[in-house]
Order: sequence, then structure tokens, then C-alpha cells
Amino acid sequence: MIRAGIVGGTGYTGVELLRILALHSEVEVTVVTSRADAGVRVDALYPSLRGSIDVEFSLPEVETLAECDVVFFATPNGTAMLMAEQLLARGVKVIDLSADFRLKDAKEWSKWYGMEHACADLIAEAVYGLPEVNREAIRKANLIACPGCYPTAVQLGFFPLLENDLIDVKHLIADVKSGVSGAGRKAELATLMSETGESFKAYAVSGHRHLPEISQGLELVAGKSVGLTFVPHLTPMIRGIHATLYGQVAGSLDDVQALYEKRYANEAFVDVLPQGSHPDTRNVRGSNNCQISIHQPQSGHTIVVLSVIDNLVKGAAGQAVQNMNLMFGLKEDLGLKTIALYP
Amino acid sequence: MIRAGIVGGTGYTGVELLRILALHSEVEVTVVTSRADAGVRVDALYPSLRGSIDVEFSLPEVETLAECDVVFFATPNGTAMLMAEQLLARGVKVIDLSADFRLKDAKEWSKWYGMEHACADLIAEAVYGLPEVNREAIRKANLIACPGCYPTAVQLGFFPLLENDLIDVKHLIADVKSGVSGAGRKAELATLMSETGESFKAYAVSGHRHLPEISQGLELVAGKSVGLTFVPHLTPMIRGIHATLYGQVAGSLDDVQALYEKRYANEAFVDVLPQGSHPDTRNVRGSNNCQISIHQPQSGHTIVVLSVIDNLVKGAAGQAVQNMNLMFGLKEDLGLKTIALYP
Amino acid sequence: MIRAGIVGGTGYTGVELLRILALHSEVEVTVVTSRADAGVRVDALYPSLRGSIDVEFSLPEVETLAECDVVFFATPNGTAMLMAEQLLARGVKVIDLSADFRLKDAKEWSKWYGMEHACADLIAEAVYGLPEVNREAIRKANLIACPGCYPTAVQLGFFPLLENDLIDVKHLIADVKSGVSGAGRKAELATLMSETGESFKAYAVSGHRHLPEISQGLELVAGKSVGLTFVPHLTPMIRGIHATLYGQVAGSLDDVQALYEKRYANEAFVDVLPQGSHPDTRNVRGSNNCQISIHQPQSGHTIVVLSVIDNLVKGAAGQAVQNMNLMFGLKEDLGLKTIALYP
Amino acid sequence: MIRAGIVGGTGYTGVELLRILALHSEVEVTVVTSRADAGVRVDALYPSLRGSIDVEFSLPEVETLAECDVVFFATPNGTAMLMAEQLLARGVKVIDLSADFRLKDAKEWSKWYGMEHACADLIAEAVYGLPEVNREAIRKANLIACPGCYPTAVQLGFFPLLENDLIDVKHLIADVKSGVSGAGRKAELATLMSETGESFKAYAVSGHRHLPEISQGLELVAGKSVGLTFVPHLTPMIRGIHATLYGQVAGSLDDVQALYEKRYANEAFVDVLPQGSHPDTRNVRGSNNCQISIHQPQSGHTIVVLSVIDNLVKGAAGQAVQNMNLMFGLKEDLGLKTIALYP
Repeated sequence: MIRAGIVGGTGYTGVELLRILALHSEVEVTVVTSRADAGVRVDALYPSLRGSIDVEFSLPEVETLAECDVVFFATPNGTAMLMAEQLLARGVKVIDLSADFRLKDAKEWSKWYGMEHACADLIAEAVYGLPEVNREAIRKANLIACPGCYPTAVQLGFFPLLENDLIDVKHLIADVKSGVSGAGRKAELATLMSETGESFKAYAVSGHRHLPEISQGLELVAGKSVGLTFVPHLTPMIRGIHATLYGQVAGSLDDVQALYEKRYANEAFVDVLPQGSHPDTRNVRGSNNCQISIHQPQSGHTIVVLSVIDNLVKGAAGQAVQNMNLMFGLKEDLGLKTIALYP
Repeated sequence: MIRAGIVGGTGYTGVELLRILALHSEVEVTVVTSRADAGVRVDALYPSLRGSIDVEFSLPEVETLAECDVVFFATPNGTAMLMAEQLLARGVKVIDLSADFRLKDAKEWSKWYGMEHACADLIAEAVYGLPEVNREAIRKANLIACPGCYPTAVQLGFFPLLENDLIDVKHLIADVKSGVSGAGRKAELATLMSETGESFKAYAVSGHRHLPEISQGLELVAGKSVGLTFVPHLTPMIRGIHATLYGQVAGSLDDVQALYEKRYANEAFVDVLPQGSHPDTRNVRGSNNCQISIHQPQSGHTIVVLSVIDNLVKGAAGQAVQNMNLMFGLKEDLGLKTIALYP
Repeated sequence: MIRAGIVGGTGYTGVELLRILALHSEVEVTVVTSRADAGVRVDALYPSLRGSIDVEFSLPEVETLAECDVVFFATPNGTAMLMAEQLLARGVKVIDLSADFRLKDAKEWSKWYGMEHACADLIAEAVYGLPEVNREAIRKANLIACPGCYPTAVQLGFFPLLENDLIDVKHLIADVKSGVSGAGRKAELATLMSETGESFKAYAVSGHRHLPEISQGLELVAGKSVGLTFVPHLTPMIRGIHATLYGQVAGSLDDVQALYEKRYANEAFVDVLPQGSHPDTRNVRGSNNCQISIHQPQSGHTIVVLSVIDNLVKGAAGQAVQNMNLMFGLKEDLGLKTIALYP
Repeated sequence: MIRAGIVGGTGYTGVELLRILALHSEVEVTVVTSRADAGVRVDALYPSLRGSIDVEFSLPEVETLAECDVVFFATPNGTAMLMAEQLLARGVKVIDLSADFRLKDAKEWSKWYGMEHACADLIAEAVYGLPEVNREAIRKANLIACPGCYPTAVQLGFFPLLENDLIDVKHLIADVKSGVSGAGRKAELATLMSETGESFKAYAVSGHRHLPEISQGLELVAGKSVGLTFVPHLTPMIRGIHATLYGQVAGSLDDVQALYEKRYANEAFVDVLPQGSHPDTRNVRGSNNCQISIHQPQSGHTIVVLSVIDNLVKGAAGQAVQNMNLMFGLKEDLGLKTIALYP
């Protein structure tokens, strides 16, 4: 059994990790930390876990965590970078669900995240945990930087076009809509039900932290710099991300459809829908799947790619476990074969 | 492997059965019927099932269904009673999720359901599929009448008090709130999102079909007739039932709490929360659990029992599979150990 | 023109007062206070008010407020009691939407609200602002204690039965469901959309602050002590309260229906629906109306009264303006004749 | 008083017209038709209108409607074109909220709406009822084709750039999100709460009926053909449209912001928000306002215009009344000065 620890177990990605790992046949969750709730039973805070997890929250201490085989950081940005080095030194694999190791350029990171990077040396070693492009590197990695939720949906949607140089990379548009759980479990006015229910809005149009991460990922695959306009929106639901991607493409819809199907044929968690489909976020709710469809309105040059994920699963905890499975030589979909909750 | 058939696979309880059975280690779903969608792939209608179910909808024919070991009826009322006898004669076990065999009095049934009962002879043989009171009978049954969603939440909430004769059975009140999926997957004005979103109302206060079913169940356990006022409400969410039960009880809250804990100590799917708790429907969403808490406001004689379930799982498909497990000698919780989706 | 001030203009009841008063033909809002946002334009914080309100938030100072004819307190509990006396002394009428002057017993108030009452002398002078029972007193009042949202829905539902001594006052039950805006505009985990969306729960079953207020109101009308069990619930919507009231009544449904219709025949804001109706909270959303219907399931002795209001209008800001209209000799429904927003 | 008739009073735009007209000081609603509900009181079907409308639904007959000064068609497509000519011949002004007279090309209309146009002669006479570009023509019109909801939000968002030839018209993108009330009040599976709640999806990406209407409007203003990609989405809320518009613009954000502010300075219902704002659909819910903001991410050439309306008000009934006010020489905002319902 893999002994797993979770640092920051009280946020939504932490609880989602617990939901997945509690039923994972090869994992035992031995440590779940929370500064605020140390000493409290995990299932007292999260009654949905009663009967599934028999652990108390503890303080986040290296000594305790070092007894794990793998430690997940489900913490706010700026925490993993303070502890990762010590854990790696003790032979613990580290999977960071926060943004600390996602950007390869520490200065860029500091600019977007508003703090100095405390552990820039490790950035080069960190593997960006998107198995669909980095599978082999992930297998050998000790430190994983799990992609953000928006970046996962957008990159999986754009990759086949970029890999085949079929799209005008200067004018990419990603109009993306997220459920409110993406904002995390924090006491904030902006995400009260009275503020977000029955309403829809864009936010951070001038620049969202996921923009440099997406650009970095797209550029790596494209092999050149890209021009991306990324507009995130808040939609009145709890889970789900829907990316609507636009670009100029030469080529028929049939060809592009065939390309996507081939590209993702062996990917367990990326599913290209038949032509004419419109993916619905509910069809991936609670599952680790990404569903994609491609359209070419009025047979013009503008391609429209629709890509949906559950932000807490493929966009966070599920992808983290997918990485863990690869790192430990397990079947990639172990513990992740759940079916979306419909309706 | 148990070969399972589902008659009426396009409604919400049908899809929910598919979600559960697709991952059940001892079951293979071999037949899923739908008159309207015969010939269509199941996962074409329900993309959430892509990769999990490789079956087409077929017409509901006895010949085909007779090759199954068990057939679930996830049909509107009035269908199972037309086919059950033939299937039973062929040695197929039948689990009916509709109301056809729930009431022991055929005349009463006709009054509430507005049609003649086509198969009254079988009523006596049918076992009411609430394992928490009928476990042994279920193990030996060939025909199961799965309880309704409201009746499940209300009966589990009232049973310990009735079994111990601690409550004034003349004045029971069940104020129950349901998500809209309880109304089924039918094209109806009343359950449009524009009609039910952001709004709350009671309905059928003068008499709901689940009233005689609940009364029958309570009376069986109490050993005498009961006076029940049952008021169902529609709440703007998709899944979940919350029953708030009121009655006059002599005895301290501590005693009642202890009684409930003891009564359900060995039940895998009924969970009595610590004193002072308030169960939340989200904590059982997607799971087969019932969570219960007990209150005695102002230390008076009025007891308040709160009981929550997911109407499509413990209130329908999950309970049906729990029954199946018992009927086939499997572990009762096989395929049902999922954790609620939070948030 | 009546010069009106609002203390605490940034909460939901404050904004709702602004929405109503901005269109009131006899009122000019001259002062809106907020400690946190002093100096900010009101419509910068609330873009829905752009073009309707041309005022900046100011600090809550008696000097400024004393220039108003009426001051509304839309503040947390414990604020109005600190300023009311000075304003009254300057000839300003005070309408308190918080709980400070609702309970006639200062000790009881302290017990439920967890602080000493700073101005107990004024309690006797304060008129409970429920026009349907206190209209004449309100006309002459200088200090109004606006009822809470739950108490408004419950009292209007029970009054006719209590006034006519038709109900067993020992065993009243009020099972009440509220939208989340009732919790106010505060950064709190419990009312995040991720916490309250798609879920339903009871809370404060052991005792909610509105219990003594409701009991006081019912007892005043009944002329004797009452036994009330009050269970509040949180429902996943923003606005609306639905009270389901239970009691033992001797008398036919026809008689009770006639009684309610007569009792409220001249009330502009209380509407008794035809027999067989089920009021829906959306039908009063954004309006000052209370809609009521009465049922007698299975023709038994248990009466079920359904009563719905918009918690922010008839349960707060609308009722406050209704009081203001009475205090200033205006038509009672002036500025309040809006129609609910459906769908 | 203007005598107004509404044909098709049972849909959402019909009820919304009733909500607005019932409080309009210069209008008396004398006829409301419904084939299905003829003889039923309007407020029996819509209890939110109790006390505000004292009319029964009647059959849609020219004789009765001819006694009105103005008739609104809130009907499915294909109805107004059958009755408009007769009403106009009797001197009745006609305001059509359906699509019958929106497209100037009858063949194009037939292609998108799947039926022959029954009254193509009238198309030329019909004035497209978008006051912000057609005010003078509307004043003199007898037949108004009210714009669709999507077209209103998109056109108001693009107009200033097109009028000033500042945008590359070949590559316009409109990514638009609508609440479900836009689908109308019809018993359909697709808009059940269980199908649309807690989920987000695009639809009709290959071609939506509003596409030719939007293109026609944009081209008229641009004076040349435009290339538009229009992707509509369904968002889990009842009311509201949020358009996110993309285009290539030469010019600084300051200049564009100033241009928009100037263009709409005298428009009562179009409100350009300060730079940096993100309009929220709730801030126009229930009001006739359109709120717009402009962004230029990373100071690049891509402009992002955000435009929100309430689909049932500025996108339908409110705009229809705005047209009526102009046609009858009334103040343009009469009866339309409501403030959005927040929260």
C-alpha cells in the first residue's frame, strides 16, 4: 500500500483527493494536515466521508509527512515551495496541486503570484503533470506540478491543432466558463450563493494567472510563441469547466475530427465526441474525463473546439491521482474509473 | 457474473442503475430496453456512460429479458405488473423500482394510482425492499417492490421510535423536501428549470401517492394504525430528499439518541449523526447512505428527526442494487461503496 | 419629500431599501452610511443602482442623520440600540430592521442575542412593525421594530386561527424554509454557493433567535402562552421564505378558508389563495406580498397552512417602507406595487 | 389610455409584457389571448399577477384584437405573419416579439425558420425595433419586428466599433451565454431543471437562427458584409444574457472606451461601465438595461466587449414596450424605470 499524505486537506481539492483516495485499492491515506483544524476528525468536518476515512487532521510537519510515500499539496499558492525540498530529500514523492512549480520562469511566476519564489532551484526538476503530453517524464518524476483547471481544459482542446501546425497561433481565443468551486473554499463575499447564483459574469479579463501557464504549455507543443486571448467566466454552478476555443484553421472539419480522434485514441481520460456533439459539463461531473467536440460553423476557417472537464477532478484531484498512478507504476486509471453523476 | 436487464433504461432511475451496475464487479448489464430509443446506443443518449456501457437499447420483450438472471423495472407505474409474472415463471428475479407491488391492498393501489391492478395475485409474494426491516425476506425473494424515495427517508427516520412504542402514533408529521429529479425525466412544464429554479413550494398536500405506502410501512412496524400528515415539497436542486419528522415522545434526547445509534449500528447505509448535527443532502449525494439526526427543541416533548437520502440512490437505484446483492447472496454493499460528491 | 437615511447600506436589506426607495415618489434618500465604504459611490458598489441613486456612502454620524425625517437601520443586531435614542430626541423617526427592539423582555433579548441591551428604556416605546396587527399603533409610532423574516411568514399564517381560538396552541409546528440571502451579505463559508447550492438542510433546530419573537407575537394575539416548535431550513435559492404550519383545528376546511379570506380581505399585501392552491415563493419574489393557502389533508384535524414571502421585501425592506408609509400618513402601498419577477 | 392586446399571453415573454404593462401608467391591457387557456383568468395561471390584471384569456380573434390600439405578438414564430396584415388594415399598431419580420430577405427567413413566409409583402414595411439605431423610424412605424435576445446583446456591443470602422469585420466572434428562459415555456426534456441545472454547454454551434439576424444588423451599420462566428451557450440560470465579443481593433483602450461612452451617452437603457468593470447579468435582471464594458487584454489588438441584458426585458418584453412608447409619442422610459433585483 502506498502511504499518502495530504497537506491542506480542508479545501475542495483536498476533500476531493480524500474522496478518490479513500476508495483507491493501492493507497492508504495516513496523514491529512490542517493548521486550523488539527485534532479534529476529518469526517467531523466532512460528514460525506463518514465510514470512509478514519484520520484526524494534524499539523503540517515534515517529520510526519516524511513517513509517507507520496505527499499531495492541496494548499494555497506559496506553501508547497516551502516544504517540497525537505520531503524530496527524504525520498518522498511530491505532487503539488497548487501553482508553485507550474511556470518554468521564476520571475514570471513572481509577477503573476505576487511573491518571491522560495524554491526556484526545484522548478527545473518539476514535471508538469499533464499525462497526455508528459507521460514518460511523469513516470520518472519525483516532483509534479499539477496543471490548473483552466489550463487542462484549454490545452487538451488545442493540442492536436498545435502539434500539427494547423492553426494560426497568433490569434487563439479561449472563452472559458467555470463553476464556483474553482474559487476554493474560502470565506469571501464574491462567491456567496447570493452573489453568484442566478448570475453570470466574466472576470480578470485583463489578465488571469492561468494565462502564462496556458501560453507556456501551448508554446511548448507548438514550438513557437502564441498569441492567446483568455477570458474566464464564473457560471452559477458548483463543478465544471467549459472551454470554447476559437482559431483560424485551414482544413476540413472531417480532417480535424479524424486528427483529434487519432490523437486521443489511447487516452483513457480524453474522449472525442462524434461530429455534431456538444459536450455538457454534467457528463464529466465527478469523473476524471475530458470530453471534446469540434465544430466549423458555416464551413468557414474558424474552428470551434468545445472542451469540458470537472475542475476538481481532471482539473485537480483526479489528475493528481492519475500522476500518482504513473509515478508508482500502477495502472493509470486505477481508482479513477468513476462515472459522472447524471442528472 | 449476474446478467442484468433494465426495462425502461432512459429515465433517471434507469440511468442511475446503469451508473451503479456498470462498475459492479459481479454484474454484466446485458439488456436495456426503451421503446422510444430502440436501436440507439445507450451511451449516445447518455454520454456520461461512454466507455462504461457497450449496449444498445432494445424493445422490451420477454424472450430477451428471460435470458437475464435479474430484471430491474425502472418504468412508469403500470408496466412491471404486465411483465413480472412471465419473467418470474422463467426463473428470472424481478426488482421493481416502480410502485406496482408496493401496496398490499390492490384496491387501495387502484385508488391512488388510477388504474386497475393487472397482477394482484403477485402482490402477496412481493417483498417490500427495505433491507433495514425486511433483510431476511429479501434474501429469499424473487420479486421485490422497491420503496419510493419519500417512504425510504420517512420510514428510516421513524422506525426506532415506532418499534419501541415511544411515540404518539396518532399525530405523526412528515414535512419532506425533494429535489426535482424525483419527478422523473418527462417533458413537463412543471419541472422546467424556469419553473422550479430559484423557487420553493409544497404540492399534493391533500394527498400524495406515497402517503399510503408510508402509512403501511409505519403501521407494520408499529403494530397499530397511525395518523400521518405528509407534506411533500419541491426544492430547487436536482438530487436529494430531506425529511423533517415531528412527533410527541416521552423520553430524553439522550435515550432516543442511544436508541437510534443502537438500532442502526450494523446497518451499512444508515448513519446516525452525533447529537447536535444537521444532516445535509449533499453529504449523501450520489451515495446510498441515509444520514439521520435527532433533536428535541427546548427539551420539550416534540421530537424532531432529520433524515436525508439521495432520492435516486437510496431512494431508488442504489436500494435496488442493495436488494439484488441480498437476493444473490453477495456482500450487501458490493458496488455501493461510493462516497458522496462534495461540494 | 421625505428625507430618508439608511444606516448600514451595504447589506442585502440595505440595498433592497435603496431599490424600493429610489423609485418611491415621496422619498429622497439623502444619507446612506457604511463604515467600510465611506466615500465610495453607492452605485459603484451596486451597479444595479446606476442611474437611480446619486449618493456616496458616508460614516454613520448622528449629526448627518439628524437631518433626515426618517432613518432606517439595516445594520447587524446591536447597532440601532446605540443610536436610536439620540435620533428620536432630534425628532427623527426610526425604523429598525434589525432585532434590537423586537423582544419586549430585555433579559430574554440578552439571552438570545448574546449581549446586554444598551437601550432597554426604549423597548416599551417601540412598536412591532407588523401592520396587519399593529396598524394604528404604527401610524403614531416614532420607533418601529421591523419583524424578522421568519416571524412575518409564520405569524401571518397563524393569526386567523389564533385570533378565533380555533387551534390547539400547545402544539404548533412551523417548518420553515429560507433562501440564503436571509443569512446576509457576510463573508462566511457556510453560505458559499459551493456549500449551499444543490443541497438542503435544517439548522439551529435546538433554538433559533426568531423563536422567542414568533412566540411573543403569537401569544399576544392568542391571549395565552403557546407551545411552538420552529425548525428553520436553508434551501438552495437566493430569495424567498416558505412556511409550512401545522396545528390541530376543529372545524371544516371551508370554514377556515372563509375565515382567512375575511381576515385578510382588506390587506393589500396578504393574499389568500383559492382552496387547493400551493403558493410558490417565486410568485412573491421581489414583491411585498404574502400569499397563503390552507389545506386539511384527509379531512382530518390537522390543518396545514402554507405561507410565502420574499424575505428581503415583506420580510425586511418592503415591510419597513410599508411602516414608513403609515407613519407619514401616505398611502400604505405607495412605492410597493411591484409585481413578482416570474420566471 | 392605450388599449393593448397580447397574442400568446402564456409564454414567458407574454407574462413579462403583462408584468410591465400592468404598471404602465398609459396602458390598459384589454385582451390577452391563449388558445389553450381561453376562459381562464390570467392570474389563475400566473398568481404573481393577482391584484394587477383583471382579464381572462380569450381566443385570438381579429375582431377582438382590432379594438386595441396596439397588439403585441408574444407567439411562436409563424403566427404574427398570419394576423398582422388584417390588424394593420384596421389601424392597429403591431409589435411582433417573434422572428417573423426580423429578416429582410424572405428566402433567408424560410431557410432558417423552416416554413414559407406567409406575408412577405409586409417585411419591407416592418421596422427593426432596436431604438438605439432605429429610433426615428420606430416613431413612425406601424409594424415593429422586435429584435431577438442574442441579437440585442451582440449588436449593442459591436455597434460603436462598426459605426466607426475600427474593427476587422471579417473575424468577429460572439461567444454568448443565455439563461434557460430564453428557450421559452414549453414542455421539453432539454430544459428540465434536472437537465440544465448544475451544467453548462454550447448548442447549435453549426448555426443558430439568430446568426442571420445579427449579421444583417451588423452589416447595415458597417455598410459592408461581415464574417461572424456566433456560439450560443446554455447557462444554469433562468434570466440573463452575457455576450463576450472578440475582434481585432487598432486603437487604444482609452479611445475605445471614450467612443462607447459618447455613443451611448444619451441612451437611457445602454450603460457603459467604467474601465476595468465586468458586468454581471444580475445587475440587469428584471430591468431594461444593457450594461457594457470594454477590455483590451495585454494591451494587444484583440478587443473584448462584455455586454449583458435580461433576455426577457431588453431582449424581449421591455424592448417591445420601449418601442411602443416611441410609437405613441410617450417618454421612452415610461413604465421601464425598474431597478434590477439584487441579490
